[in-house]
Amino acid sequence: MTAAPAAPDPGYDLPALPGMRLDEIQTPALVIDMAALERNLDWMRTFVEERGLRLRAHAKTHKSADLARLQIQTGGACGICCQKVSEAEAMVRAGITDILIANQVRDPAKLDRLARLAKRARILLCVDDPGAVPDLSAAAVRHGVTIEVLVEIECGAARCGIAPGAPARDLALRVAAAPGLRFSGLQAYQGSAQHLPTEAARGEAIARAETVTRETLRMLGEAGLACDIIGGAGTGSFPFEAASGVWNELQCGSYVFMDADYRRVLGADGNGFEQALFVLGSVMSRAPGRAICDAGLKCFSVDSGLPVVADRPGIAFTGISDEHGHLADPEGRLAVNEKLRLIPGHCDPTCNLHDWYVCLRDDRVEALWPVTARGKVF
Amino acid sequence: MTAAPAAPDPGYDLPALPGMRLDEIQTPALVIDMAALERNLDWMRTFVEERGLRLRAHAKTHKSADLARLQIQTGGACGICCQKVSEAEAMVRAGITDILIANQVRDPAKLDRLARLAKRARILLCVDDPGAVPDLSAAAVRHGVTIEVLVEIECGAARCGIAPGAPARDLALRVAAAPGLRFSGLQAYQGSAQHLPTEAARGEAIARAETVTRETLRMLGEAGLACDIIGGAGTGSFPFEAASGVWNELQCGSYVFMDADYRRVLGADGNGFEQALFVLGSVMSRAPGRAICDAGLKCFSVDSGLPVVADRPGIAFTGISDEHGHLADPEGRLAVNEKLRLIPGHCDPTCNLHDWYVCLRDDRVEALWPVTARGKVF
Repeated sequence: MTAAPAAPDPGYDLPALPGMRLDEIQTPALVIDMAALERNLDWMRTFVEERGLRLRAHAKTHKSADLARLQIQTGGACGICCQKVSEAEAMVRAGITDILIANQVRDPAKLDRLARLAKRARILLCVDDPGAVPDLSAAAVRHGVTIEVLVEIECGAARCGIAPGAPARDLALRVAAAPGLRFSGLQAYQGSAQHLPTEAARGEAIARAETVTRETLRMLGEAGLACDIIGGAGTGSFPFEAASGVWNELQCGSYVFMDADYRRVLGADGNGFEQALFVLGSVMSRAPGRAICDAGLKCFSVDSGLPVVADRPGIAFTGISDEHGHLADPEGRLAVNEKLRLIPGHCDPTCNLHDWYVCLRDDRVEALWPVTARGKVF
Repeated sequence: MTAAPAAPDPGYDLPALPGMRLDEIQTPALVIDMAALERNLDWMRTFVEERGLRLRAHAKTHKSADLARLQIQTGGACGICCQKVSEAEAMVRAGITDILIANQVRDPAKLDRLARLAKRARILLCVDDPGAVPDLSAAAVRHGVTIEVLVEIECGAARCGIAPGAPARDLALRVAAAPGLRFSGLQAYQGSAQHLPTEAARGEAIARAETVTRETLRMLGEAGLACDIIGGAGTGSFPFEAASGVWNELQCGSYVFMDADYRRVLGADGNGFEQALFVLGSVMSRAPGRAICDAGLKCFSVDSGLPVVADRPGIAFTGISDEHGHLADPEGRLAVNEKLRLIPGHCDPTCNLHDWYVCLRDDRVEALWPVTARGKVF
């Protein structure tokens, strides 16, 4: 009998256990560089504190209750955003008590679930259609709760949102008059601005959003409606919203982790944010000039491009299939079982593929965090 | 108090419950048309039975123990393929007892986990490197088990696999001589042939794979090594492997579900296979000429293109973001809360995003099947 290597036991379902070295992690695994994460959290807390702005961190990026708690306790966040009712349910179960569903919810059964959540947490929801008000109001009344509403305006992304100006004002008046609802402000998120390739283009897109948001605010003021929240902004554009004097609640998400696409867009210094998220992969096969690693389409979302190899100049990620990553290795530097830190093209949908974050400090596993709301899309 | 709509309770974490109508499902949800699935299973069982071939269905497509069991009990499968040790662990826990890991596994800790699995199931593994034999043999000996080995040859896909011919023969001899291992045959899977756009191109790719596989078999025969298994073939190419007289064990996976990419490649009739897998989405916002549904990048893998709208001529899926699907609706046919059946671009990584299959028969929920090995990538 030879000695057994250190397979995680009884951790059959876990990629690692606390105390393990990086090279003992069963790959592929989603890993966080905790020191980099903490610096990103500090950077953003300082930014909003210095400007007297609120941060409502977007939890759709990470879907982690542990990280949401950290953002609220030490990262300067007043609460979080979620995108789906089931995501908010998972966060409320984990003890988060201030949640904006930064999205439209129309199914009466989902609205019923949302109203039940409002018994345990402050719940805010975006609305972009007068037709949405009766069902939402009925759900709130049925459960004896108040649901706060942000009127979502279409400010350039051509996604959800009512037309700014008079239609938005009229919707706000309707919300304010509905039993069980409170009008709490505007949602003015310009999603398509986040990944524009130049700072100038992002600034122009936010300037256009600012114009229509200001005009809507003016009309709301004339109608006697105050906005507690003017929400929006993402990791690609928030300096513009912050400088505008219009927005008061920033909804950035990706800043905690960063990804290859934001690094391309924001430049190598990431506007101050460091890459804190990686998929750790291992080489499992070699051939002249190339190698194959164990991280494929079930570890990465490739909607914004292939992963990028960190730390290893001369090695390129060149292709991907379901279970394999293709690496160009012209000088034959990679050995079988070698570990690679891979930067996801797009962090949000990549995190949603994994069940666990392996939290690393000085290349030791400090903790495993569940991806609390993984797969909570409904 | 108005009457509460039918939210699944206590099914907070479930998109549906058995007995519900299609319009009561909380969307987005991954749904199976059970009648179409059963016809696909029947088609393939008949195909292999008529030809005296074995089917080792690839479970990486669905990751469902329920469906694997159905494939073995009524679908003509002798066992299943998995791609990762953790995937096989999940299937063994669910009672599946004949599993080929159709991939390379090199980490000694993973090989230890694999050898432990071989106490409870027949386990086969692909090997493409003489350097892999000592660790695998040691793990088998340590746990007192026999692990069967298929020598994987590179037959055109430029992924894993040792060079065919003499290198493959020498590796087979080395496997056959190693304690705890049994040489059981060849893995000759031409992955890149599956999605070639024409039948002729797929046929040519498999003809090239056939040539090198035959030559390797000849050399193995000269060396006195018999192959119980010559494995390979996928949903795009299996008629060619089946007709060759070389392969005897087909490893098709996607045939159970189909997807938009295979429908493009194989033609509208899917070579006999019907679309049995959909993501059910709901419209949640409207604007002139377009609509937004609730199914985005966390519901679909878009590596092989956007989803396709079923049943609704004139409605096109035109864009996708994390939580939103963009629909062109030039004639304004879509209403808020309307349900849409969406065909995934690529079934395997799409299934891996979801926790549940909602099994439908005559538009009623018949069962919920867990995606047993979801996220089991290590």
